[in-house]
Amino acid sequence: MTLTSSATPDLVLPKGVKDFLPLKAAKLEHLSHTVRGVFDQWGFRPILPPALELLSVLERGLGDGLRERVFRFDDRQGGRLVAFPPDMTPQVARIVATRMQALPLPLRLCYSGRVLRHAEEQAGKDREIFQAGVELIGLDSVEADAEMIAMAISALKALGVKEFTIDVGQVDFFRGIMDELSLEPAAAQKLKVAIASKDSSGLKTLLAGLELSTELREAVLALPRLFGGREVLTRAAKVAGNERSCAALRQLEEVFDILETYGVEEHVTVDLGELQGLDYHTGITFSGYLSGVGRAVCSGGRYDNLMARYGFPAPATGFTFDLQALLFALDAGLGTVAGMSTDLLIFQVGGDKQPAQRLARALREQGHSVARDMIQRDLEASLDYARRLNYRYLLIVNTIDEPVRLLCLANNHELELPFATILAGDFELSN
Amino acid sequence: MTLTSSATPDLVLPKGVKDFLPLKAAKLEHLSHTVRGVFDQWGFRPILPPALELLSVLERGLGDGLRERVFRFDDRQGGRLVAFPPDMTPQVARIVATRMQALPLPLRLCYSGRVLRHAEEQAGKDREIFQAGVELIGLDSVEADAEMIAMAISALKALGVKEFTIDVGQVDFFRGIMDELSLEPAAAQKLKVAIASKDSSGLKTLLAGLELSTELREAVLALPRLFGGREVLTRAAKVAGNERSCAALRQLEEVFDILETYGVEEHVTVDLGELQGLDYHTGITFSGYLSGVGRAVCSGGRYDNLMARYGFPAPATGFTFDLQALLFALDAGLGTVAGMSTDLLIFQVGGDKQPAQRLARALREQGHSVARDMIQRDLEASLDYARRLNYRYLLIVNTIDEPVRLLCLANNHELELPFATILAGDFELSN
Repeated sequence: MTLTSSATPDLVLPKGVKDFLPLKAAKLEHLSHTVRGVFDQWGFRPILPPALELLSVLERGLGDGLRERVFRFDDRQGGRLVAFPPDMTPQVARIVATRMQALPLPLRLCYSGRVLRHAEEQAGKDREIFQAGVELIGLDSVEADAEMIAMAISALKALGVKEFTIDVGQVDFFRGIMDELSLEPAAAQKLKVAIASKDSSGLKTLLAGLELSTELREAVLALPRLFGGREVLTRAAKVAGNERSCAALRQLEEVFDILETYGVEEHVTVDLGELQGLDYHTGITFSGYLSGVGRAVCSGGRYDNLMARYGFPAPATGFTFDLQALLFALDAGLGTVAGMSTDLLIFQVGGDKQPAQRLARALREQGHSVARDMIQRDLEASLDYARRLNYRYLLIVNTIDEPVRLLCLANNHELELPFATILAGDFELSN
Repeated sequence: MTLTSSATPDLVLPKGVKDFLPLKAAKLEHLSHTVRGVFDQWGFRPILPPALELLSVLERGLGDGLRERVFRFDDRQGGRLVAFPPDMTPQVARIVATRMQALPLPLRLCYSGRVLRHAEEQAGKDREIFQAGVELIGLDSVEADAEMIAMAISALKALGVKEFTIDVGQVDFFRGIMDELSLEPAAAQKLKVAIASKDSSGLKTLLAGLELSTELREAVLALPRLFGGREVLTRAAKVAGNERSCAALRQLEEVFDILETYGVEEHVTVDLGELQGLDYHTGITFSGYLSGVGRAVCSGGRYDNLMARYGFPAPATGFTFDLQALLFALDAGLGTVAGMSTDLLIFQVGGDKQPAQRLARALREQGHSVARDMIQRDLEASLDYARRLNYRYLLIVNTIDEPVRLLCLANNHELELPFATILAGDFELSN
């Protein structure tokens, strides 16, 4: 039963989405499950927004970057424009504002699921994104910011990751300097791009055309280099000449203090030239990186203006894991934790299937995972099937009066046990 | 911080979708998790199809009933019509046919996730459907059909359901009779509707216009009444005058034999007038019903023609749970299993937050779920918050030299323990 090759050419997928076959699917589920376990341990409770929203409602809560990338279409039932969420945070904001406003704050909420985004220019980018994230709504303290970072670190540790960095920024540090510059929007945008891409010479050229004090010029030129350990904050304090930037630095110092109490400061770095999410975030932001992987595995930050767009002003912070980025980084190491094996395949010798059916039932009740080989084939073929589909043991059953053979596929050891012994669960499978 | 009522009227949802707030979300996740655990125990492995498919690819695998109900739109990236799957089975078929054809059969695959369907005429119908299901591909034996039914029963038992029925049909019984009648399509359709709605008098009127043998007339008239326990098969055998119908009955007898070995036959009934999914299914079909709930909680059956539409002819069977239907039926009883409580809320007395931060860290490492109350408020307010958000204990921390108060919110019992005792985990929370 093989595929005629002429039948397949048409069976392609839309751009930017993919299939997860069992091994990858199990790994992705393991990642989601582990991260969600940490969220639960920090007191976050699940929320499940719908896969469809009215476009007008969704757009209230989207930054400019995402607004362009929404999957939208006419709803033939209802006649309004609907959309598939490109991000769950605006949905959570809407739900809290409309349906949970009677609860005392803060609210700790978590979610996992997929969102859809049209891809940016580059080819081969994912359009379907698997997220698991949290929102902490109603707290404007640095303790809340620190909680987000500490949770991201907890989750990465729970996944067994050893080498990783949480790179923390504070968008107000940059905004304070921009306030001083008071540039036209177009010039401000050019400056932003140069800083975000750490393009020091481009930045110099841009500043050459402006009349600025030496101090301010120094401050702007320093921005692309203000990343590294906690000592960056001291360097930054020397160039920061405005209250908004200074306040941003004081917040970061406090966050570091708390993270030291949590014992996780070794994983934390600062990047004051990090400007991603600038149109959306209002304070401390962060992204998580695994050693040797360029794409962030998690990101988030404070967004104190979003809730008000849904009629419920409240400070808030949150972050989300990109599960595919995690899978890409951790794939090889997940072989054992998400091994995708089933404990036992049962092979029945002879035409009477009842012994196999009885054992299957008993073994499942004992907590084992069990499938029966129901295809008419010989033992050799069944053994080959069990190996190729990664079963741990083949159980060869005859009549109930004959011993059952238990063959370990990892080491080919074979054990014979009475039918009744297996039925009663008086045996153990090695790990 | 309350919502000004003027802000909400616009914040509605598209028709047919809804928000799941924490309690319901936790229950839905519990249902999905439990069902998936049973699938795992029977040797089924996860597969994760994408949320987007090319419409032309998806439509190959859809029955007429679903084809009309697909969410479709132009893909601005790629320029082809894309669709959101209304059912995962065609996706699994495509994946197996194009990417898993080298593996030996049978394949046991499972999935969970949401699909979108335009609603039928009735108002208020869900358009977003939460499914958890399995596909068993490559087996045409009745043992495979029985496995599906036994698994559905196992899953319902794992969910703690006591009273339920799996209603089994076999579409070939009806098709055999229709072969004998050889009606025009329009007349056949009318007959189908009358039988499916168990409209005996309508059926009589329809038959009055046809020239038929007495035996055949009796057989057709019997169809709406051929439901009940296993004895229905004996009654049906008396009216079945063609080989196709008789073969269908023999299959059902065999399925019952196997289900008796599994010890689950008490939950199984037969309905030979059940014609749902007739354009898609090819053999044994079934639906699961909970006592007192009209909507099926699971349904499925054999679909031997689907795989060939993707260039990989293979017999197959499968079924899926409708998780919202399960939630509707089991909601009240799930309060304890999905109780949505967090173990501890920590309240810090005084300005130094370090003792609370240290305890939070230690308690999480001990396996407890813990949140800290970070808002500036008095103990009374914190206690109220803990009660309303369903925490189990409030932990009141002062300095590390003073005892910690552990207040059980269920019974107001209070315990004082040294800081070091809690830090070391030398205590237990009652259940």
